[in-house]
Amino acid sequence: MTVQYDGTEFAGFQIQVGRRTVQEVLETALHQVTGEGTRVAGAGRTDSGVHATGQVISFETRSSLNAQVLKRAMNAVLPDDVAIASAADAPAGFHARFSAKSRAYRYTVWNGRERLVIGREYAYSWRAYLDDAAMDRAAALLVGRHDFAAFAGASHSVDKPSNTVRALFRLHCWREDQRVLIEAAADAFLPHMVRNLVGTLMLVGTGLRMAEDVNEILASRDRRRAGRTVPAKGLCLTRVQY
Amino acid sequence: MTVQYDGTEFAGFQIQVGRRTVQEVLETALHQVTGEGTRVAGAGRTDSGVHATGQVISFETRSSLNAQVLKRAMNAVLPDDVAIASAADAPAGFHARFSAKSRAYRYTVWNGRERLVIGREYAYSWRAYLDDAAMDRAAALLVGRHDFAAFAGASHSVDKPSNTVRALFRLHCWREDQRVLIEAAADAFLPHMVRNLVGTLMLVGTGLRMAEDVNEILASRDRRRAGRTVPAKGLCLTRVQY
Repeated sequence: MTVQYDGTEFAGFQIQVGRRTVQEVLETALHQVTGEGTRVAGAGRTDSGVHATGQVISFETRSSLNAQVLKRAMNAVLPDDVAIASAADAPAGFHARFSAKSRAYRYTVWNGRERLVIGREYAYSWRAYLDDAAMDRAAALLVGRHDFAAFAGASHSVDKPSNTVRALFRLHCWREDQRVLIEAAADAFLPHMVRNLVGTLMLVGTGLRMAEDVNEILASRDRRRAGRTVPAKGLCLTRVQY
Repeated sequence: MTVQYDGTEFAGFQIQVGRRTVQEVLETALHQVTGEGTRVAGAGRTDSGVHATGQVISFETRSSLNAQVLKRAMNAVLPDDVAIASAADAPAGFHARFSAKSRAYRYTVWNGRERLVIGREYAYSWRAYLDDAAMDRAAALLVGRHDFAAFAGASHSVDKPSNTVRALFRLHCWREDQRVLIEAAADAFLPHMVRNLVGTLMLVGTGLRMAEDVNEILASRDRRRAGRTVPAKGLCLTRVQY
């Protein structure tokens, strides 16, 4: 199933005791519809506050309902901030997370002079003008199969380089009027990796770093050299490919 | 000042005892900034839940702060869901409401097959396909100076026709992908008039009425003949001209 959600009121995708998560809401809806206690797998374990227009989930069910009926039934019981966009039977052995070949995310920076009001939950507001062309030049230097330890969340240790190699297929940055958009696609992302990449590109966009500096930041494998983790609300999981 | 707000958490523009309104929030901010108890006038008294990207307000102040400083100071104290977009000194006698020559509103219908999740607070979701071309033909028939009693909110009486004449300068309807947009501009609108016009156009869009039927609905001056009042969250005050 392809799933859309507004991450604002969720403590992320993955189940955590006592928190409202997307996985828990989906499993509850599935239970209501099928009567089964089913575990749901998600392609991307999005953080608290991150949105999705193209999350993919998989699960096993003995329900006799076909995919389209299941989708409609789930949409009827799901809360306002989650919806099933599409559903299909998957081949045996398919797993939303382990079968995924690439994930794509989009990050939205509101770079207007005025405060963003309408849609402020879906963008990170940054007032100083961003040089999107410089950001895009820096982005191009990061594409490829690299050790992205410098862009890994704090939970990742520099001592395990083998775990921080990822193939970044695409990293683009461009401006649409007062918005600066960053699109990233990789085989998989490290925790906080997209938000750390964006934070680093923004150092370039504000002129604090040169586009070429990202080469040495990447090579350093040192998280402290890269930019900060930008806020979750600008991030959206847009597509997963298999 | 031009003011933007997300109407979701407001009980409309106009002050009401015990409710959170845009006017009250603006007057509170002005008081914090200038120390004065100032009454604010708004060009459009938007209903509960209606948004604005181009509301205009006026007020008198003895403050020595110039317009740009006042704007920045107010933005610093205003909550997340209201912002001052621009500010200027007005000529003597200017009044945001009484000096306005036209108001423009935009209504957004989400007409996709899937449930809208991201941005659902800014659109009215309607699943059945809307014939936007037929809606636009009907819209064109309503443009002009007419007695709009059939489209006036319940508080307006049919017995006072002189109060329900308005000049509708523009009424357009078009589709952008899965959204159907309706734009309306008039010298002034009756209570609920835009939402009643949209509800009537939607009767045409769903095929329950012919585009030409709006002629007799208009002529009837009978509120019961027109479509229903569509929800506030799809409506946005976009521009006021003087």
